[in-house]
Amino acid sequence: MQDHLDDILATVRPLEPIELNLLDAQGCVLVDDITVPLSLPPFDNSSMDGYAVRVADVAGASEEFPAALEVVGDVAAGRAEPLSVGPGQAARIMTGAPLPPGAETVVPVEWTDGGLGEGPVAGMRARSLAPEGAEGQVHVYRPAQARAHVRAKGSDVRSGDRALEAGTVLGPPQIALLAAIGRGRVRVRPRPRVVVLSTGSELVQPDEELAHGQIYDSNSFALTAAARDAGAIAYRVGAVADDAETLRSTIEDQLVRADLMVTTGGVSVGAYDVVKEALAHVADEDEPGGGVDFRKLAMQPGKPQGFGSIGPDHTPLLALPGNPVSSYVSFELFVRPAIRTLMGLTDVHRPTTTASLAADKALTSPRGRRQFLRASYADGSVTPVGGSGSHLVAALAHADALIVVPEDAETVEPGAEVEVVLLG
Amino acid sequence: MQDHLDDILATVRPLEPIELNLLDAQGCVLVDDITVPLSLPPFDNSSMDGYAVRVADVAGASEEFPAALEVVGDVAAGRAEPLSVGPGQAARIMTGAPLPPGAETVVPVEWTDGGLGEGPVAGMRARSLAPEGAEGQVHVYRPAQARAHVRAKGSDVRSGDRALEAGTVLGPPQIALLAAIGRGRVRVRPRPRVVVLSTGSELVQPDEELAHGQIYDSNSFALTAAARDAGAIAYRVGAVADDAETLRSTIEDQLVRADLMVTTGGVSVGAYDVVKEALAHVADEDEPGGGVDFRKLAMQPGKPQGFGSIGPDHTPLLALPGNPVSSYVSFELFVRPAIRTLMGLTDVHRPTTTASLAADKALTSPRGRRQFLRASYADGSVTPVGGSGSHLVAALAHADALIVVPEDAETVEPGAEVEVVLLG
Repeated sequence: MQDHLDDILATVRPLEPIELNLLDAQGCVLVDDITVPLSLPPFDNSSMDGYAVRVADVAGASEEFPAALEVVGDVAAGRAEPLSVGPGQAARIMTGAPLPPGAETVVPVEWTDGGLGEGPVAGMRARSLAPEGAEGQVHVYRPAQARAHVRAKGSDVRSGDRALEAGTVLGPPQIALLAAIGRGRVRVRPRPRVVVLSTGSELVQPDEELAHGQIYDSNSFALTAAARDAGAIAYRVGAVADDAETLRSTIEDQLVRADLMVTTGGVSVGAYDVVKEALAHVADEDEPGGGVDFRKLAMQPGKPQGFGSIGPDHTPLLALPGNPVSSYVSFELFVRPAIRTLMGLTDVHRPTTTASLAADKALTSPRGRRQFLRASYADGSVTPVGGSGSHLVAALAHADALIVVPEDAETVEPGAEVEVVLLG
Repeated sequence: MQDHLDDILATVRPLEPIELNLLDAQGCVLVDDITVPLSLPPFDNSSMDGYAVRVADVAGASEEFPAALEVVGDVAAGRAEPLSVGPGQAARIMTGAPLPPGAETVVPVEWTDGGLGEGPVAGMRARSLAPEGAEGQVHVYRPAQARAHVRAKGSDVRSGDRALEAGTVLGPPQIALLAAIGRGRVRVRPRPRVVVLSTGSELVQPDEELAHGQIYDSNSFALTAAARDAGAIAYRVGAVADDAETLRSTIEDQLVRADLMVTTGGVSVGAYDVVKEALAHVADEDEPGGGVDFRKLAMQPGKPQGFGSIGPDHTPLLALPGNPVSSYVSFELFVRPAIRTLMGLTDVHRPTTTASLAADKALTSPRGRRQFLRASYADGSVTPVGGSGSHLVAALAHADALIVVPEDAETVEPGAEVEVVLLG
């Protein structure tokens, strides 16, 4: 099993970077180190709504003995008119507005009479009520230290600093920082395009009628959803009948939109398992590295697996078994890491933990095969959900973890420590 | 702060359900209990590629004394021709194919000579090599118990069982189950459409030139990304200047595509804080429940906040402060729970935990205000990242948690237990 995964991870390479608009790059991996091109804030600015003043002019001010200053006008964010503050003067200033020349500090409006002459105020009068802006006199009731309520230029980041390192995943806060330093586009690894295709002549699409011997196609839905969950752009191709020629031409048609192909079914030892047969012919046999290998892995579920590359671009292909549980577990163990490798992520695996087995009786597991059992995990304890049958899709829908029973264990007693894969 | 959150959660209601195709419903909340309409598997079927036989015919079989049976044909999945197995007969059967009448058990192909007469085989000959299917004689080398390698009809789920409960979030395994029982469409709460709008005359879009006194708009990017992260379909409206009429008409234009509106900036006590003014006029004052309230909350960052509903549909609106850190923290605390409530989720909050404070010196916090500090969490320990300034967006990009310092604490010593919000 580990060999198979190693082969996949040694073959699959991160996709070539593309430049994307910031919001299109959400969840993607940054390719370059990003250097800050300008200091943030780009200028000294006020952290409060208040008055920009000189320190000496408000020294010793109190409610009893306020400092009376001449208001020379407004400094609003984004409207900075040339305005300077001289001795005995104040400029009304808004949060984020540049500290005007001559001013040394900011007193919050709540420490003043707001120019109204009637004691401390809770805020400024809206400009719509007093469109002329601030004028006349303001009384200041408290002193302020130099640069109080002033955010210094460069106090957040400085020009030349490293903003983000290559390899960073772009979530909302990273996008915030990139926007704040003026980066509207970034080079990232794109989301991989994954084509999911189920095979089996017995498969019928949901909402259609089942004839005897038929079942509904669930794998193509489950794996398309799982591929999206892993970060991919996933395309679901409905079930393809067990006919090598049809399968071959469908795969060839789909290659144009695939960075990774995933098939389910047709990989075992049956006479109608056409995936192997079809894929041998899709591979360009003149090219090295082409072709798909089929293996029996020492695991349960998911024993038969195929992996290789096909077509002129050596598109990687994973051929998973057809039982719903087998294909889902195979996806988690092999396809998800492949998708995340294509994205350029280094953390490609589901998290694992150890937990105490909560069960009425011992688990049994075939010797020589690593078993993955659906389970429910909570607070360091893990409880099996449903049986080990590869067809039990109902139990899967109520599981959030997989218990891993190692190759050399045939039984696991209740209370034993077991390894658990968290499906999150 | 809790009052504000309570008001939001008491006002915001889950969106009306819609019927969606299965894959479009990924991540959404199921509205109805789903009952299984047919048993799974729908018929007894083989779990192996092999031969369907009668138990008595293979009793005592061994490599030395194999049972020789007449092969009556193939039973392939989805191609079930009418075929029955009489005494002394075998049908070659593929995984998933219905157990034919008369057969009582399945022997895997590996226990037989595959009809080739040359000892045990590893698999069947592909149909392309032997298109006539199985015929002649097969030697079976091992006995089989009744119904060995047979998956019984209904062994996964039975008609009438509860497949999934209302309120279930549809992830890949739940989508697998719905497809498996033939449900191609489901009724779910849709993803909310969230319009994000930043305000401020100082704001310039990334990649444009900054003049003195201007900064780049980062809030509209950060909150659009965060809204998507929370499960919404988010629309970013570029920054709107501090002009009440422009803001009012922009908001009115956007209402048509909004289940929730989020604004940033313009909610404080400054003369140019036009959000309050604009929103009072958007509200339909003749209708009960309309209008937006503005409050000062006992928290840092994020003191000034607005919440209410606007327009003919009483669309909920959250008005957040304009500092990047304030708006982001406010989003996490107020907007994310609102989005998740609209989705019909019951688990609307970020997970919290307690951790030991890893810091060189004590944290200080203003008395009477609950403080949220950016931090990095790992293994039960939490380290502050950057300072407490509301403009420090660089530190935010390197944080994955918020330390919560309660209202009554003014200092927190290194090593103390603190509450932590995990930003995931």
